[in-house]
Amino acid sequence: MTTENLQITLAARPRGLPVDTDWARVTAPVREPDDGEVVVEVIYLSLDPAMRGWMNDIRSYIPPVKLGEVFRAAGVGRVIEGRSPDLSAGDLVYGIVGMQRYATMKASALERLPADAGVSLPDYLGVLGLPGLTAYFGLFDVGAAQPGDTVLVSAASGAVGSVVGQLAKIHGCRAVGSAGGPDKCRHLTEVLGFDAAIDYKSGDSLTRAIGAACRDGVNVYFDNVGGPMLEAALRHLARGARVVICGAIHHYNETSAPRGPAGYLSLLVHRARMEGFVVFDYADRYAEARAKLAGWLAEGRLKSQVTIAEGLENAPQALLRLFSGDKLGKLVVRVADDPAA
Amino acid sequence: MTTENLQITLAARPRGLPVDTDWARVTAPVREPDDGEVVVEVIYLSLDPAMRGWMNDIRSYIPPVKLGEVFRAAGVGRVIEGRSPDLSAGDLVYGIVGMQRYATMKASALERLPADAGVSLPDYLGVLGLPGLTAYFGLFDVGAAQPGDTVLVSAASGAVGSVVGQLAKIHGCRAVGSAGGPDKCRHLTEVLGFDAAIDYKSGDSLTRAIGAACRDGVNVYFDNVGGPMLEAALRHLARGARVVICGAIHHYNETSAPRGPAGYLSLLVHRARMEGFVVFDYADRYAEARAKLAGWLAEGRLKSQVTIAEGLENAPQALLRLFSGDKLGKLVVRVADDPAA
Repeated sequence: MTTENLQITLAARPRGLPVDTDWARVTAPVREPDDGEVVVEVIYLSLDPAMRGWMNDIRSYIPPVKLGEVFRAAGVGRVIEGRSPDLSAGDLVYGIVGMQRYATMKASALERLPADAGVSLPDYLGVLGLPGLTAYFGLFDVGAAQPGDTVLVSAASGAVGSVVGQLAKIHGCRAVGSAGGPDKCRHLTEVLGFDAAIDYKSGDSLTRAIGAACRDGVNVYFDNVGGPMLEAALRHLARGARVVICGAIHHYNETSAPRGPAGYLSLLVHRARMEGFVVFDYADRYAEARAKLAGWLAEGRLKSQVTIAEGLENAPQALLRLFSGDKLGKLVVRVADDPAA
Repeated sequence: MTTENLQITLAARPRGLPVDTDWARVTAPVREPDDGEVVVEVIYLSLDPAMRGWMNDIRSYIPPVKLGEVFRAAGVGRVIEGRSPDLSAGDLVYGIVGMQRYATMKASALERLPADAGVSLPDYLGVLGLPGLTAYFGLFDVGAAQPGDTVLVSAASGAVGSVVGQLAKIHGCRAVGSAGGPDKCRHLTEVLGFDAAIDYKSGDSLTRAIGAACRDGVNVYFDNVGGPMLEAALRHLARGARVVICGAIHHYNETSAPRGPAGYLSLLVHRARMEGFVVFDYADRYAEARAKLAGWLAEGRLKSQVTIAEGLENAPQALLRLFSGDKLGKLVVRVADDPAA
């Protein structure tokens, strides 16, 4: 096999928002597979806010990406050749394939996707992928959402938030989401079935807006952003509320230490808790959650929204759309033609 | 009954540290008891950090004290007359008697103390009172401390913290406490049996000191102070840690909005939670906890430390000792002679 590979590697560690020179585009021959390995042609790559953290030289729940290394990314693709009895050419697979056109990797690190499940490939990176699983375990396990609860979620038009709100509705909760701009807010209430939406870009007081949308207080606040939205949500906790710390995109490009939530003593007044989690800890229950998510998706009770950016070479620019908010739902990069699309 | 009463009322709402003119000393005849009421001669009053919050015009978990009102305070005393079949003259009682020499109040709002339980009266305000109960439920229920855990507690030489550390040891945990100055730190390790003490006034880095004392990370951080200590503790959480928010004395006299804990995302990295609580929610389990605390006290496994300030009229000044740290263990005011002392 002599096909040329295109790889996106980390060239420099950014301060603040990443710039194009923080990345390098490298061409190299596709590495031949060893025993037990296969070559995957990548079709879609997932772009996730957590990637910004992996660019820093700080160990979080997983190590940072090293300088010069192909950037870590989840993706779906097709096996094109291999030396493993477990996967055959043509198999569709999911795995941490990295930002590259072809990934030569162990078959055991890949998950074979069902051939005709009626699921579009990007959904394996969104509703049925880590964002959907994150929403599921964060809302039900960490947030312990109960029917009748008011669930507030930030970045509600994003990959995780949009699923959180819809799962809340399926579970019999009231769902309130925050998003940037009237179009996204309309999407929440008119397409995804949220009970109310808060436009954080409107210039209105977030505290007043949350108070108006959550008159009995917030039972579960699912936080993807941190910053002023977390601060405002803490002012409206119901007794015994659960604040689920899933992410903090507001802070990821900050160059100085973040301000913490000054209202944290609200946890005491309202006997509430704030809890962080990492979806990887739930790996032994992914199958259970995926089966439920897939069922709701098939029934039409869970809607998928995907924004597709074109071309591997544009992945670094596309990543910035997570921070500008210029996308809806799950953001993926199309690297090769989708056989089903 | 014509005895004159001395009462301490709230005269003004302080900004920052209270000053003497925020209080008034009022004399008035002792009110005659109605049916169902008794007159209590107060012997000891409890001084608690939460009192500072009650001076602000902000509803927290209980309403603030009104201007002109006798200041709310728990105390122990002796019934001197009454019109209730439930209490007789000479009975020792506990209740929210207020900052005054004589409290005329409903017998049903008082708890009769056992006559010869071998417990000193101030202990009903400390180890066996709300501070001890707060330590018990905060450590075991909210903090879910397990044998083998490292338990870090701030204000560890205080009424609550000193019990938290001792209960941690009784439960088979490693106990580390922070306190101000070498004498208090020695008290923790040499008298109360803590495994290590951190002197927050030493000028050393709190973060380094916690790291050195808690090499495997902190499983339970019981926080009474907030501020830099909370910030530093968040940097050393073990996987799945519990941060118990009991109080925040660092912030109680602040005149501007507090800085929140910038390191709160450590909750995500370490799958940890931060949870607030109010001891009053455990009222139906006080008897269970008191029986255990009294047992450990009788066995000598739990040591009581009380600082006594003399004279009701000095209560406002004595309250400031909670913020300057000029006391050890539980701070009480002696209002009348203790029959047992």
